[in-house]
Amino acid sequence: MTVTDLTTTTSAGECERLLVAAHDAANAWGSKRPAERARVLDGIANAIDEAAGKLLPLAEEETNLSRGRLSSELQRTTFQLRLFGQQLRDGAYLRAIIDLPDPQWPMGAPRPDLRRTHVPIGPVVVFAASNFPFAFSVAGGDTASALAAGNPVLVKAHSGHPRLSAMTADVVTSVLEAAGAPEGVFGLLYGVEAGRTALADPRIKAGSFTGSIPGGRALMDIAVSRPDPIPFYGELGSNNPVFVTEQAAHQRPTEIAEGFVNSFSLGAGQFCTKPGTLFVPAGSDIVPRLEAAVLPAAAKLLNGRIAGGYQASLGELTSHPHVEVLAQGTESSPDAPSPTLLKTQARHLLEDPRVLESECFGPAALVIEYDDESQLVPLATTFEGQLTATIYAGDTCDVNNLVQVLREKAGRLLWNQWPTGVSVTYAQQHGGPYPATTSPGSTSVGTAAIERFLRPVAFQGFPRHLLPEELQDANPLGIPQTVNQPTQSA
Amino acid sequence: MTVTDLTTTTSAGECERLLVAAHDAANAWGSKRPAERARVLDGIANAIDEAAGKLLPLAEEETNLSRGRLSSELQRTTFQLRLFGQQLRDGAYLRAIIDLPDPQWPMGAPRPDLRRTHVPIGPVVVFAASNFPFAFSVAGGDTASALAAGNPVLVKAHSGHPRLSAMTADVVTSVLEAAGAPEGVFGLLYGVEAGRTALADPRIKAGSFTGSIPGGRALMDIAVSRPDPIPFYGELGSNNPVFVTEQAAHQRPTEIAEGFVNSFSLGAGQFCTKPGTLFVPAGSDIVPRLEAAVLPAAAKLLNGRIAGGYQASLGELTSHPHVEVLAQGTESSPDAPSPTLLKTQARHLLEDPRVLESECFGPAALVIEYDDESQLVPLATTFEGQLTATIYAGDTCDVNNLVQVLREKAGRLLWNQWPTGVSVTYAQQHGGPYPATTSPGSTSVGTAAIERFLRPVAFQGFPRHLLPEELQDANPLGIPQTVNQPTQSA
Repeated sequence: MTVTDLTTTTSAGECERLLVAAHDAANAWGSKRPAERARVLDGIANAIDEAAGKLLPLAEEETNLSRGRLSSELQRTTFQLRLFGQQLRDGAYLRAIIDLPDPQWPMGAPRPDLRRTHVPIGPVVVFAASNFPFAFSVAGGDTASALAAGNPVLVKAHSGHPRLSAMTADVVTSVLEAAGAPEGVFGLLYGVEAGRTALADPRIKAGSFTGSIPGGRALMDIAVSRPDPIPFYGELGSNNPVFVTEQAAHQRPTEIAEGFVNSFSLGAGQFCTKPGTLFVPAGSDIVPRLEAAVLPAAAKLLNGRIAGGYQASLGELTSHPHVEVLAQGTESSPDAPSPTLLKTQARHLLEDPRVLESECFGPAALVIEYDDESQLVPLATTFEGQLTATIYAGDTCDVNNLVQVLREKAGRLLWNQWPTGVSVTYAQQHGGPYPATTSPGSTSVGTAAIERFLRPVAFQGFPRHLLPEELQDANPLGIPQTVNQPTQSA
Repeated sequence: MTVTDLTTTTSAGECERLLVAAHDAANAWGSKRPAERARVLDGIANAIDEAAGKLLPLAEEETNLSRGRLSSELQRTTFQLRLFGQQLRDGAYLRAIIDLPDPQWPMGAPRPDLRRTHVPIGPVVVFAASNFPFAFSVAGGDTASALAAGNPVLVKAHSGHPRLSAMTADVVTSVLEAAGAPEGVFGLLYGVEAGRTALADPRIKAGSFTGSIPGGRALMDIAVSRPDPIPFYGELGSNNPVFVTEQAAHQRPTEIAEGFVNSFSLGAGQFCTKPGTLFVPAGSDIVPRLEAAVLPAAAKLLNGRIAGGYQASLGELTSHPHVEVLAQGTESSPDAPSPTLLKTQARHLLEDPRVLESECFGPAALVIEYDDESQLVPLATTFEGQLTATIYAGDTCDVNNLVQVLREKAGRLLWNQWPTGVSVTYAQQHGGPYPATTSPGSTSVGTAAIERFLRPVAFQGFPRHLLPEELQDANPLGIPQTVNQPTQSA
């Protein structure tokens, strides 16, 4: 295993070589049977698990995240690779639909033999995130789902963990080589310029990103401004508000206060699903408990840029005339800030939502006291698109209107649970309207993430031997096929 | 039924009123049970069928299309509305997935109760097309699928058939009113400026368009440049090449020549799936048959702008040094041009693909003679994204590589059939990589078109009574639910 020399960024010539190789590998990789790609994904997962002893210390050194946190993330990452493998074996992801010919089709013209499947979109460039050096980085969810879909992947490494990126890439590459995959199926790029060059290149057919709003928007603008625009799946920013009803605040003030402190400060607040805002009834027992809470110790943030951004965001909030500090740990330093809880009142949020609802990436959150539950719907309405929105309530609370507003705002709604800790499952939805993501119809976590990197193709009147296997009558792959959907009188 | 006054375009004030109304109607319309919306779509279909006697003469007058052609299109349009209604009753379109809690979830943390459905994306602006005054216009596929998904729709009327647009809108509005739908569920806009204003407005959550590459790209740029970018589904341009193998040319020259003439000149060549290029072996019997073909009579094009664009495109092709006229009708006029067949050789296409492969909207097509079948793959490779690509071949022809290249280029591949006449079915795919569309993962024809106007939302840990009906254990809607997908050891 060799760690790439990191003194320079990827040169234009090397970038071109990787783009050519990715282009040339697309057909061979995309043409493999899904189960063959699943074996390779399993192999990558196994190899990462085996390399954990080398990967984890390097991750700890480069990101300042704790060993326990990183170890869980690595487990999540290899589980994710295997789950996409399982999805490939299952085959439902192809959404194979077969319409047999129908001379009486009520459209007024006979229905031809039409069969629809999904094919790989083409080479993908993945921009890795800083805050999940495994799960949203070199071998993370975007890479796993794009490879599973049958696409070559170029990962633009995050500058926050360059050596871990190289080591992870070496693990991935070794497995691909041993499996006989074409060389260009996977490549690693370093540096902003290389990433931009790849995203703008006509051989790249989609881009994905997890990071900040300005960074993601700048990349999206490149993708959509190309002579041939391509899909860009960016996960940008989210405040993840939590709404506590009067009943819940009355019945469970301690549980809610403790849970909130734990969730907002987890991983030093560096989760995209960190709850940034907590709405509580004025005068409830939650605020005193938060004020008296023993906050977790200060922890070093991911890197200097993150720390600088956090100080700037926090400064903007604390200098707001109607924001006060509710609780703050001692022993703070610019690189390792103490968790901080701020407080304001609902009327100030209604007056100035943009500042008070902006994401503050790091261990801070804003508690907002409301006077009356009837304010919750107007308060929720002020938010932009979110990854999550949470309600703490009793089962008898009338929150129908609040749920209705929040489902227009967010991709995932939670009930009496905290938004941090995103489960990788079939029903997961990690996405939402802008600026939560640039593509509200997609998810970057869960099995549905594979759909971002597929494109539908229909075959009309094709002979059996030229159809993709998943569309053949004999169904040699044994996958779910939807044949001749029932036609009621139309 | 009143026909709107057309002397002016929609004013800024009226546009604002429609945007407010669409925004205000979203919740009520989107909250209706799918079967209730299906009843409304059926009602619109019935009302359009009943109004055919008034609609068809107006369409004929405004578009120059024949009564027979328009009558078929109207039938297709009302069938389409009913098919989306059927899809709503079936409920599979919601893709309801239920993951029950699993304490042993191999990710390393217990799996919560997670349930995913799809919700309406929000108010949609639909830019109507000129060439399908029913099926891709006021009550066409985009309107039907967006309404079916639960979204209010503002249609920007095409200037080519303003009175038909108004009359169709009145039919739609009458049905919606009678059904008690909120007023803003449907509105009609006139004029380029009103369309742009609506597309840029924060209350609009998606746009769709069928038309030219420059027009579509300009609108896409508005959608993606908003402070909050939104999905834009544009169907722009396509050449729809047809590849004839030597065997097919040898065995069926007459059938292929006749079929091609019929397909390229159908509706005066004003279909987005018109085959613009026919590749035939040099020296085959097809070219002499085309040369001798009796071409259909000249027909008046949709309008003066279309006719002007056609003359310009045709002029560019005929002035190409290596393009010659193969066959052309007499009695041509600028507004009613005769069908025209042009011819060149494969080597010229390889040298200058951009000009020779550009779409010529109207009754012209280019026949390209190749010397050897081995040229077909490199020829296919030169094309940009296409709606369709067609192969005429015998069952023993080795066209595997050609199929592989074409499925990277096009959304629908046809085998020994012509691409015009797009069937509205479950497996249909009407889309493709840019510039065929701006969104390669979507279709604008067939039941999957509804997915463009939906957004996934997951509910975590929700009590039964607050879940959408499609996610409840009792499944009161009786729709397909995927519960606890099988987990092999992962």
